[in-house]
Amino acid sequence: MIIVMKPNATAAEIKNVENSIILCGLFPHVSNGEHVTIIGVVGNKKLYLEKNSPESFPGVEKVVQVSESYKLANKKFKADPTIIDLGDGVKIGGDNFVIMAGPCAVESLEQLLESAEAAKNAGAQILRGGAYKPRTSPYAFQGLEEKGLEYMAEARERTGLKIISEVTSVNALEAAVNYVDIIQIGARNMQNFELLKAAGRTNIPVMLKRGISATIDEWLNAAEYIMSGGNENVILCERGIRTYETSTRNTLDISAVPVIKEKSHLPIIVDPSHASGVRKYVAPLSKAAIAAGSDGLMIEVHPNPACALSDGPQSLNPDEFIQLTNELKPFINLVGRKF
Amino acid sequence: MIIVMKPNATAAEIKNVENSIILCGLFPHVSNGEHVTIIGVVGNKKLYLEKNSPESFPGVEKVVQVSESYKLANKKFKADPTIIDLGDGVKIGGDNFVIMAGPCAVESLEQLLESAEAAKNAGAQILRGGAYKPRTSPYAFQGLEEKGLEYMAEARERTGLKIISEVTSVNALEAAVNYVDIIQIGARNMQNFELLKAAGRTNIPVMLKRGISATIDEWLNAAEYIMSGGNENVILCERGIRTYETSTRNTLDISAVPVIKEKSHLPIIVDPSHASGVRKYVAPLSKAAIAAGSDGLMIEVHPNPACALSDGPQSLNPDEFIQLTNELKPFINLVGRKF
Amino acid sequence: MIIVMKPNATAAEIKNVENSIILCGLFPHVSNGEHVTIIGVVGNKKLYLEKNSPESFPGVEKVVQVSESYKLANKKFKADPTIIDLGDGVKIGGDNFVIMAGPCAVESLEQLLESAEAAKNAGAQILRGGAYKPRTSPYAFQGLEEKGLEYMAEARERTGLKIISEVTSVNALEAAVNYVDIIQIGARNMQNFELLKAAGRTNIPVMLKRGISATIDEWLNAAEYIMSGGNENVILCERGIRTYETSTRNTLDISAVPVIKEKSHLPIIVDPSHASGVRKYVAPLSKAAIAAGSDGLMIEVHPNPACALSDGPQSLNPDEFIQLTNELKPFINLVGRKF
Amino acid sequence: MIIVMKPNATAAEIKNVENSIILCGLFPHVSNGEHVTIIGVVGNKKLYLEKNSPESFPGVEKVVQVSESYKLANKKFKADPTIIDLGDGVKIGGDNFVIMAGPCAVESLEQLLESAEAAKNAGAQILRGGAYKPRTSPYAFQGLEEKGLEYMAEARERTGLKIISEVTSVNALEAAVNYVDIIQIGARNMQNFELLKAAGRTNIPVMLKRGISATIDEWLNAAEYIMSGGNENVILCERGIRTYETSTRNTLDISAVPVIKEKSHLPIIVDPSHASGVRKYVAPLSKAAIAAGSDGLMIEVHPNPACALSDGPQSLNPDEFIQLTNELKPFINLVGRKF
Repeated sequence: MIIVMKPNATAAEIKNVENSIILCGLFPHVSNGEHVTIIGVVGNKKLYLEKNSPESFPGVEKVVQVSESYKLANKKFKADPTIIDLGDGVKIGGDNFVIMAGPCAVESLEQLLESAEAAKNAGAQILRGGAYKPRTSPYAFQGLEEKGLEYMAEARERTGLKIISEVTSVNALEAAVNYVDIIQIGARNMQNFELLKAAGRTNIPVMLKRGISATIDEWLNAAEYIMSGGNENVILCERGIRTYETSTRNTLDISAVPVIKEKSHLPIIVDPSHASGVRKYVAPLSKAAIAAGSDGLMIEVHPNPACALSDGPQSLNPDEFIQLTNELKPFINLVGRKF
Repeated sequence: MIIVMKPNATAAEIKNVENSIILCGLFPHVSNGEHVTIIGVVGNKKLYLEKNSPESFPGVEKVVQVSESYKLANKKFKADPTIIDLGDGVKIGGDNFVIMAGPCAVESLEQLLESAEAAKNAGAQILRGGAYKPRTSPYAFQGLEEKGLEYMAEARERTGLKIISEVTSVNALEAAVNYVDIIQIGARNMQNFELLKAAGRTNIPVMLKRGISATIDEWLNAAEYIMSGGNENVILCERGIRTYETSTRNTLDISAVPVIKEKSHLPIIVDPSHASGVRKYVAPLSKAAIAAGSDGLMIEVHPNPACALSDGPQSLNPDEFIQLTNELKPFINLVGRKF
Repeated sequence: MIIVMKPNATAAEIKNVENSIILCGLFPHVSNGEHVTIIGVVGNKKLYLEKNSPESFPGVEKVVQVSESYKLANKKFKADPTIIDLGDGVKIGGDNFVIMAGPCAVESLEQLLESAEAAKNAGAQILRGGAYKPRTSPYAFQGLEEKGLEYMAEARERTGLKIISEVTSVNALEAAVNYVDIIQIGARNMQNFELLKAAGRTNIPVMLKRGISATIDEWLNAAEYIMSGGNENVILCERGIRTYETSTRNTLDISAVPVIKEKSHLPIIVDPSHASGVRKYVAPLSKAAIAAGSDGLMIEVHPNPACALSDGPQSLNPDEFIQLTNELKPFINLVGRKF
Repeated sequence: MIIVMKPNATAAEIKNVENSIILCGLFPHVSNGEHVTIIGVVGNKKLYLEKNSPESFPGVEKVVQVSESYKLANKKFKADPTIIDLGDGVKIGGDNFVIMAGPCAVESLEQLLESAEAAKNAGAQILRGGAYKPRTSPYAFQGLEEKGLEYMAEARERTGLKIISEVTSVNALEAAVNYVDIIQIGARNMQNFELLKAAGRTNIPVMLKRGISATIDEWLNAAEYIMSGGNENVILCERGIRTYETSTRNTLDISAVPVIKEKSHLPIIVDPSHASGVRKYVAPLSKAAIAAGSDGLMIEVHPNPACALSDGPQSLNPDEFIQLTNELKPFINLVGRKF
């Protein structure tokens, strides 16, 4: 941590900052420049910040953080990529490639089984389906809740697919752990810290979607909440960020894939369906995600998108989905991934 | 709701949309333009959207919503401003003006009582103080939890101030209802729908902060979650939105004040401390908020900002806060508000 | 300037950075922290950056700028506020308050004179009117060009108002200097550096609008282009920035007013008409601007807004404008400004 | 165009809107819904908007545009992709793939020739190099101007590469047309309409970069300015947009590639160097661009990035660039493009 003093900071103000550091048992490293003085804090800066707000000291211009606040999620402390083994040969991370497919919302057993069949036929390894739906309006369809999870489990039974479903509260999480292979935490709950802590106390892999306007650092800190609770099996999912552009629902931040690969060892999945909100952009964005180094994709598939209770405009029907995976396979091969 | 067809939509595609409307017992109003056909849905569009995803129909260009999805929060359905009476003469809304002041986080009884004294002396009617703190990093100070609420209640006892405190989970909410006069739901939880629903089942006023990148419509829909649960005493709080600008922590959306006054009957408070993140901008932004029509302010006050465990750089000390309220009073008088 | 090395930077990499500094005749100030080494560049960093791209050196994590790149616009080098004297008692900056009013586009002499009359009657000191219009579509009305400037000059003749008009090219600038009292450079041209340089070679005051997504630092650097050319009479104008929010055309960054007052000595004007794009929000935002410390306002007034060729939805008619200035006067008095 | 009336609009207000349409010789198509009345404008809406500002009429809630304002750039009016033939077998668009490479700024003949050699060896068909540099600070290196163009022409002579260079003013454009094969208009000048019009009067292909916060519709309207002047050889270039995320310099909007392919027949190039600002992200983003359907790439190459006068951190050295094109070839083959 570096404390930058104002150009007109007095000697007393500089001394005051130095003393605050010494009082915490740390060492101030003072560097007098032509115009400004900067003071490095050598030692455990966490200890220092617990007792001080250096931005508030008189004469301080700004405080620059030199290192990241996340540790367990940080590649600097674990160079090897995390690989999450779901059993039966389904792995996420490393040189594996995974496709999660299914409807945005579980609407009925029949709809789900048709979707699962479509996912299976096209080669997807994991079935997605929302039982607890976070919806902007309280008057929109809110999901089948635990009944939806039962249907998901039945679909797994029949197809052998692994299953992932979103939880929107600690209660939903407590229900979901009895059913799912992966817990999903959605964009709106990325900083629902109670939910993150609760997920950290389970031993089920967690897929953490990026918040709608979360920075990559905030996202990795949110992963750190789960990991610091004891559950290190976290999968990140880029699903588009909010910008001023309106031709897509969100703006897929494709750079997040290489940035995450640079900063963290955790696997990252891309969701082109939510990112674009437009069916016809799912294929080109899926290819871009594979090419950029993504570890997998999450894609909405619905037996009859025009009747979907949620997110119909971006869902593929079974035929479109098979066509998509056929188009994707050469890209997955080219990047040397197992699918 | 208006469904706009593509320029090259076929007669069959147009007929298909019409039929989907008729099948829901509603009436399609078709208008053939020179280039495009548009179809109005006359009747209960909610019913229609429960069964159809018109964006997914072949030949459809886009779907335009004509009316808002929130009802109880909508000024169209309740023209008179909502006034929330906390008792002892403290009211929020109408021609009242309220100031909520106190530390970002409750750190100790002593720190809180000093803050409360400062708030009281400067004329604030409500004490703020965080017992459950949502923090980006799991390693940052997380709050005193229920002990913090006890201190808040004690500060109320001693000063007569009303108290407001943030809840970050349903569990925290269940504890807080036994202590606070106003429940605060923070920006990160604006779309924590389970928490909103739980707050809707209480009979305690709720202050709902705008999400860090929430649109005003999403914000009013979040208020609708609380109101549709039976609790119509909702206060909105603008606290800055996320933009690319870095000279302030967030960008205070001052326009939100008149926009909310146009769209809703709910009172709106402005938080210049979180919006700017910089102490010296709190005064000018407070004046701007009053001038723009805000119903109140929420301001961070700490007996010793340089030692604050959270948000020190934006906190005022007691002397600065008294000076601030003295500067604000002529503005509050000018807009004809009671303070 | 501070160069932060990576945690795993080698001694050779650190030496390499030091040498690059020494080779420029400057002094490297090396500080070895527990995890990272940081190197301060003492001396003329401009000289260093002309010859080096330190972000590209092996082992470098990041480069932190400690001081701003603008000098003439910087309050650190000129503490007193700049006051621009247009003659006849019209001054911008200091404790003066100025209102610029008129139509977005000059459409006809009659329309302009009616607008000028309205501006004059309501107390505005400066008439605005666009002769060269930057329009998103090439098929929209592009302005009367030099004929519009002639009408502006005639309106000045008849009313005694000072006049301001936008230039969109060096050619337009060359025409405008023969007519106007203030040259306006619009948001889309804030980084049209050739135009900025040309404006810097005139001796006519320049009002520089903030670019639609310009940071405050970029804005002050754009002002620096004009000032470094010899023309130090620059007025800044905040006109809203682009965000995701759609209930206003842009988001008025009200914090820009105190931030500019902190960083620069230049006067700042607020344009609530363009910022909001909505007539009924002009009054509350004008009041907010005054309260926040703005040096003036720019407001669209049109004799018949419903027929305006440009920006009708946000224009006030003459009666509305007189009512507005009457509402604003007590606020201007309260902040101790002369109007 | 659809005019949506307010729920409480009076019959007189509705009649007023209808009359305004009839007075322009057009036909109002009125549709009375349960809550609101909507009025379609049938006929030449441009004519209508030249004389009316319907948003300003009493009783009007909003005005919805149904069709785009750009025509020549619109795929609806020209389905076949535009292919720009630069001669000597170099084509942009269709199933061709093109790489433009070279330094951000031309610094010296030697530096440029080394870059050109590197570009040539790696298979690039076009040499980029900036002679007129738009720089945020007036004190930063501004380019060699016409001397830089001479060096570019000499590099073409020696290598056979086509050349592209940015113009930042009409004067620069007038110089550049004597040298370059493609004129580049940069992000900061995307809405410098005088420059766009001037470029439209030349017969040299123009590459138009997307403005730093331009919507795709604004971008296509900017292209329309050039095309409506008579020069239909426009190439679009996505170079990242401004968002709140700071781990990359801008956020590459990869979705812009399929969106442009949906809306326009013009070719689109991606610039991963400027989009990310980080050397190591250039390779994954280049692959993503190819996979998403881009017609080409623009990449910064410098013989010695650590000494580059501009944008060193994102430049590749010659060896890195050859390695990059080798990695990209299989992706270009996979999408069936000629390179």
